[in-house]
Amino acid sequence: MSLDPSPLSQHIQLAIEVVATFAFALSGILEGARKRLDAVGVCVVAFLAAFGGGTLRDLLLDVRPFFWVKYIELLWAVFVLCILAMLFMRQRHFEFTERAIQWPDALGLGLFTAAGVFQAITMDMPPLVAVFMGVITGVFGGVLRDIVCNEIPNAFKDHRPYAICAFVGGWVYIGLRELGCPAYVNMLGCVTATLGLRVWAVWQDVRLPQWRN
Amino acid sequence: MSLDPSPLSQHIQLAIEVVATFAFALSGILEGARKRLDAVGVCVVAFLAAFGGGTLRDLLLDVRPFFWVKYIELLWAVFVLCILAMLFMRQRHFEFTERAIQWPDALGLGLFTAAGVFQAITMDMPPLVAVFMGVITGVFGGVLRDIVCNEIPNAFKDHRPYAICAFVGGWVYIGLRELGCPAYVNMLGCVTATLGLRVWAVWQDVRLPQWRN
Amino acid sequence: MSLDPSPLSQHIQLAIEVVATFAFALSGILEGARKRLDAVGVCVVAFLAAFGGGTLRDLLLDVRPFFWVKYIELLWAVFVLCILAMLFMRQRHFEFTERAIQWPDALGLGLFTAAGVFQAITMDMPPLVAVFMGVITGVFGGVLRDIVCNEIPNAFKDHRPYAICAFVGGWVYIGLRELGCPAYVNMLGCVTATLGLRVWAVWQDVRLPQWRN
Repeated sequence: MSLDPSPLSQHIQLAIEVVATFAFALSGILEGARKRLDAVGVCVVAFLAAFGGGTLRDLLLDVRPFFWVKYIELLWAVFVLCILAMLFMRQRHFEFTERAIQWPDALGLGLFTAAGVFQAITMDMPPLVAVFMGVITGVFGGVLRDIVCNEIPNAFKDHRPYAICAFVGGWVYIGLRELGCPAYVNMLGCVTATLGLRVWAVWQDVRLPQWRN
Repeated sequence: MSLDPSPLSQHIQLAIEVVATFAFALSGILEGARKRLDAVGVCVVAFLAAFGGGTLRDLLLDVRPFFWVKYIELLWAVFVLCILAMLFMRQRHFEFTERAIQWPDALGLGLFTAAGVFQAITMDMPPLVAVFMGVITGVFGGVLRDIVCNEIPNAFKDHRPYAICAFVGGWVYIGLRELGCPAYVNMLGCVTATLGLRVWAVWQDVRLPQWRN
Repeated sequence: MSLDPSPLSQHIQLAIEVVATFAFALSGILEGARKRLDAVGVCVVAFLAAFGGGTLRDLLLDVRPFFWVKYIELLWAVFVLCILAMLFMRQRHFEFTERAIQWPDALGLGLFTAAGVFQAITMDMPPLVAVFMGVITGVFGGVLRDIVCNEIPNAFKDHRPYAICAFVGGWVYIGLRELGCPAYVNMLGCVTATLGLRVWAVWQDVRLPQWRN
């Protein structure tokens, strides 16, 4: 995913991606620790949370190599993050960490969604499929994390807008593209819409309506 | 999957497939509602139930595009079904719906199994693998639905013939093919055997033998 | 996977692989029986335990045909094993079986890990990815088995070295390869290290350190 050819913006983009991946990995480390998994379990759940969504998208779209094979440094970085967390993070840090990662997590949701839509559009997928690929990239890391931890995925039951932000953001991408905007505008629009909606939803404590009985 | 070139039978076949897909999707909507998932969760579980089995088969056989990419209308239709169900279906409708979908579900099991065996045979898979692909197509949508809802898959623990009907139906396909019958006869035989066995099992309340201690 | 061209060692290798696959399948049969699954569930869980790890590796590496398509006899053999187990195995045999399969299971862990690393190295994957593919091949059959049985995977929570043995064994493979050793030496080293570590861990009842609060 390359928004702009200038070296400075590339460095900024790379930094944002690393921060977002770390936020996703940290959500996995926290859940693994809560479930009292051992060191192996914590690492696997962190990897699933960080790389699961993009890997599932690439499996479905039949894309190789996976991005974590192309950017092997990211795999090492998450591995080191897991070890550092297990060495230095204690239960009293959990709540603070969870609140702190909400913001990079929202950024990650936006970036991963944009990357997923972009990838699917490049392969001439129909708009609805492209939007779904965006949502899968942004959301299914957390879904796989929760399935392995033997929970109903949080994204499906906490009645807060999360996947829906990605869904709307995906359609913003498609809409801008229909208007003839270049790829980096579409992506920026998608990231902004997803991130904005998510931040607004967290800030306002928005709830999805209940299924009425 | 095309049983016959005449336009009338094609329309009938398409109608049956849509009904079967809707039955599978409804089973997902019901389970999602029972588990009190939010709107996103209900949709995801409905999609998994309707499209999960065929998608897993295509992943294993390395077939692209997925059938829900080729028939994008089906994806939209299930999406609309989910929204209508969430707007208009109430808990008092659940039991009736569950009983009502048993029959289209049995039809879907037959159709999806036949489609799975056909696909694998076309790719020169050995008979046992082809039969397994049929069973996966018919059964694993429900399995994925149950895994996401944090249940042991119903197909593996309710001691009623379900996957076994698909397994027998798959061998009927293989047997007819060995006898030199054309593809549409094999498929009709497979659908009839699977559907008949399943209807008989539901009607007679057949139980699989328990593991003796 | 072929360690050596001589017919005798090939026969020995094949025999070891069959024993290891059976050990993995038996672990699935036992867990299925414990969870009181029906005949279908027991078979599916046995197949997942025996073939799930290698299948997931091949999905990720985009390798076809799967090894259970190439060696269809192995699929039949596990199928027969399931039926025999359901006919003749009773609850009083479970504990003995579980203890007895620890050793072939450790062998399977070593062999499957070596096969996974070998496969990934053949496809020019970076070392860390190759080691992960080895671990996935050895460990994820059991992980899928536990997910379907609605448990947190044992490999992630029992605080005993299992995946870690495979991880170390994978690096032994990479290390020997860096030293210029031929493939069969690398594989032997990997199997020996993984098996040795696992046997030592079981024998000494080694525990991974707890996450300190």
